Amino acid sequence: MARGLNRVFLIGALATRPDMRYTPAGLAILDLTLAGQDLLLSDNGGEREVSWYHRVRLLGRQAEMWGDLLDQGQLVFVEGRLEYRQWEREGERRSELQIRADFLDPLDDRGKERAEDSRGQPRLRAALNQVFLMGNLTRDPELRYTPQGTAVARLGLAVNERRQGAEERTHFVEVQAWRDLAEWAAELRKGDGLFVIGRLVNDSWTSSSGERRFQTRVEALRLERPTRGPAQAGGSRSREVQTGGVDIDEGLEDFPPEEELPF
Amino acid sequence: MARGLNRVFLIGALATRPDMRYTPAGLAILDLTLAGQDLLLSDNGGEREVSWYHRVRLLGRQAEMWGDLLDQGQLVFVEGRLEYRQWEREGERRSELQIRADFLDPLDDRGKERAEDSRGQPRLRAALNQVFLMGNLTRDPELRYTPQGTAVARLGLAVNERRQGAEERTHFVEVQAWRDLAEWAAELRKGDGLFVIGRLVNDSWTSSSGERRFQTRVEALRLERPTRGPAQAGGSRSREVQTGGVDIDEGLEDFPPEEELPF
Repeated sequence: MARGLNRVFLIGALATRPDMRYTPAGLAILDLTLAGQDLLLSDNGGEREVSWYHRVRLLGRQAEMWGDLLDQGQLVFVEGRLEYRQWEREGERRSELQIRADFLDPLDDRGKERAEDSRGQPRLRAALNQVFLMGNLTRDPELRYTPQGTAVARLGLAVNERRQGAEERTHFVEVQAWRDLAEWAAELRKGDGLFVIGRLVNDSWTSSSGERRFQTRVEALRLERPTRGPAQAGGSRSREVQTGGVDIDEGLEDFPPEEELPF
Repeated sequence: MARGLNRVFLIGALATRPDMRYTPAGLAILDLTLAGQDLLLSDNGGEREVSWYHRVRLLGRQAEMWGDLLDQGQLVFVEGRLEYRQWEREGERRSELQIRADFLDPLDDRGKERAEDSRGQPRLRAALNQVFLMGNLTRDPELRYTPQGTAVARLGLAVNERRQGAEERTHFVEVQAWRDLAEWAAELRKGDGLFVIGRLVNDSWTSSSGERRFQTRVEALRLERPTRGPAQAGGSRSREVQTGGVDIDEGLEDFPPEEELPF
């Protein structure tokens, strides 16, 4: 399986006051709802704004530190990763995709424009919403066409996570592609590696049992195919790079780089 | 000092065959030159292509692993960080900004367009060239205007790097902003925190001693100001998050998230 890449960059407004709580085991959890609007070019060259609400989670000391400092409406930059969680409820399998924050910073909001939703919750206009993923397809892509003849493909991506000192995990992400990207993606097969750059979007529908259901998925802006799954190549992502006892940073000082760049 | 954020994402073509060598201490070094062209919108709404050549470095096992697998012309995705290095040559201070790769993958090049430079070296068209930085200004910004009246500002950014098991380092990056971004940036002062999204570009000039000099800097696409330098807030970036003995991943399973999203 391709070693995963899983990076999310968001700038949005806090739609609500952050929600701090503790697990029975005493672990602090801070859940934020970040809200923004992306400015997109439509087919006819016009512009349209698409809104989003994404749940961002901080844990432990990070949660406790920011819990008191953040409030509704504040602008926040988050760098993090998509985190897939699955559980059972009344015999039914449930899952959710949210963002685990690795890096968070409140931002200066002078001159920034906000919109307000029907609940009076703020959304940042001209927000930032970008995802970089590398993983493997969990199924063959499904290609369909809208009544207007626009191609749309749905892909399931398994993103592998290896973090120092933590168990290996896999995050399952739904990806949607449109037009020529959809038709390019339709050539792929279950198990293929795939690199995705996209936006994180919300989707909602009513289930057969009449319940309102939500899904967070990625709308693809760019797709690329890795030729040698890093797993075969031994994976170049491993953090612990053996260097024969030489401290990488030290070993370099005695080795000035050439000046000439190959223009 | 604001704790740093330092992420680079590139997709380009290998302009030359990678250059593998060893330091006297036996550390493998693989230097790649990745070349691409960015498609930019000019003021009058037209499009123009701007080419770039960036040096990417891999070390140790990563260098040895990829050294045999990569060749001139190949398409490669790199995720990494900017690395500033400084040394002395004939009494003159020299410095260089290159990219240290954390993650590298060759990509399928079917249907991809290349351009060729005067040396026959390939550049990927519609490449990927994106940088995310958070740091502090090393000096007050310099604002100037071109003869056509276009504002341009030059900024010096110090990006702090704390990596587990390595010494704290600082990378110095030159940033350039244009038009309203330049005039916004001119309000900032030495020491201010700054978040930058931009492109990595090459600049070259002839020094007073008649020597050809090169510089890699960031052309800003978006600038934001963090309100509370994370240093005051204790920095939310620290990898080692204390959790009172609870393994973060375990502690969560007994805590199913709410369904309702606050739309």
